[in-house]
Amino acid sequence: MTYCLGIINHHGLIFGADSRTNAGVDYISTYQKLFDFCIPGDRTIVLCTSGSLSITQAVMNHLRQDIKQNKDRNLHTLPNFYEVARYIGSTLREIQEIDRPWLERDNIDFQCNILVGGQLQGEDPQLFLVYSQGNFIQATPETPFLQIGETKYGKPILDRVLHYDTPLHLAVKAAVLSIDSTMKSNISVGPPLNVLMYQRDSFEIHHRLRLRLGSPYLATIRRYWEESVRKTFEEMPEIEWQDDVGANKQEVLID
Amino acid sequence: MTYCLGIINHHGLIFGADSRTNAGVDYISTYQKLFDFCIPGDRTIVLCTSGSLSITQAVMNHLRQDIKQNKDRNLHTLPNFYEVARYIGSTLREIQEIDRPWLERDNIDFQCNILVGGQLQGEDPQLFLVYSQGNFIQATPETPFLQIGETKYGKPILDRVLHYDTPLHLAVKAAVLSIDSTMKSNISVGPPLNVLMYQRDSFEIHHRLRLRLGSPYLATIRRYWEESVRKTFEEMPEIEWQDDVGANKQEVLID
Repeated sequence: MTYCLGIINHHGLIFGADSRTNAGVDYISTYQKLFDFCIPGDRTIVLCTSGSLSITQAVMNHLRQDIKQNKDRNLHTLPNFYEVARYIGSTLREIQEIDRPWLERDNIDFQCNILVGGQLQGEDPQLFLVYSQGNFIQATPETPFLQIGETKYGKPILDRVLHYDTPLHLAVKAAVLSIDSTMKSNISVGPPLNVLMYQRDSFEIHHRLRLRLGSPYLATIRRYWEESVRKTFEEMPEIEWQDDVGANKQEVLID
Repeated sequence: MTYCLGIINHHGLIFGADSRTNAGVDYISTYQKLFDFCIPGDRTIVLCTSGSLSITQAVMNHLRQDIKQNKDRNLHTLPNFYEVARYIGSTLREIQEIDRPWLERDNIDFQCNILVGGQLQGEDPQLFLVYSQGNFIQATPETPFLQIGETKYGKPILDRVLHYDTPLHLAVKAAVLSIDSTMKSNISVGPPLNVLMYQRDSFEIHHRLRLRLGSPYLATIRRYWEESVRKTFEEMPEIEWQDDVGANKQEVLID
């Protein structure tokens, strides 16, 4: 499994990804799922991948080859972010055309998702989620984050704190904790974590982080979080129990 | 969808359930999913249900009828909790035998799960999860809670704070917040919430709560929680960004 998230807001973008890949519980490996295609000063393009590793690696290879071979359409030449998302979707469709029939006949999962976000000159920062089918959606101020992979465990903490105006230094802690919560609940999501933070209009990523297994920072924030949660519960208003709750009253009365 | 949870620990038991049922997003209703079969002073038996409403309602009807008709084996006569779980499993299997073929041929979901917990005289409190197939598992001190329905959104908060020795008055706040987090992330889980708290060896439930939509307590703890989370992030040690993160460095360099 995988967990990747992208956050977009007024101040910039954050990306986070775990690195664990598994084919069944008896084959666990580490693969990078966060990829940086930036040209400092010109364009910021970051991708995160989830799902079939053979498909997503093939897509990444195509994206790289298109740059190397100076193809007309590649991540370093496309003029706007809508075109970037469209191009990644069509690359994904090409790979699906090649590999999907072979996977499908053996009931092997060929699904995958790709987050892509960043900023091109003359545009606001943008964040897209490209589906297996090559279509895509875009994050908007109302819901300033997108997730792929094992999305549920890490969503409540984001729902509670993320807004379009949340400062990046707070949002990034929520991102790390969202990944940590997912790792704690699903063993197929695991370190190292890769995290990037991009400040709007900087056209360069100055903040990068890789947290390995046993990282002191990860241990510190986990302990800090768990103590805070416990303290919050202790200080939270006590439940006002009710004397008479009809629907909860004894269900069966013997005649 | 549904979210129900049962917590068992050294001090007793807690049950929580939402009340929203849906057949597609265009048919939402309210049904109770928490059922109390206690005989005060003698036995505490609480059930929570998720999944196919027709199946779980049929099971509840059978359980009630068996008590009314003074059947040999019923929830008010069984001598130990293992037998209670076994009896609920076999009742569920009877209903599945009757209805499943008719549902299966139209691809209608017949899956359901039942939480059952409580305490019988001469035994410790116990908590079981009975699956659609009638088999079951029991909660143990290492993992002092069981969930059914939409389980993922509400699990991280429980993983962070629940231990076998967590005082009940804290555990119940975690339970309410676990349900609230699930309601916030999945619109098919919704109020009223029903919550019960049972103190070990009391053989009577003194703490019952029903939180309706717009309940002031629910609004209070939600606000309290969100402010605490935000404050925790503000006070959490800042991320120590790294200057050189090999795997995150620019992925593609044009030759």
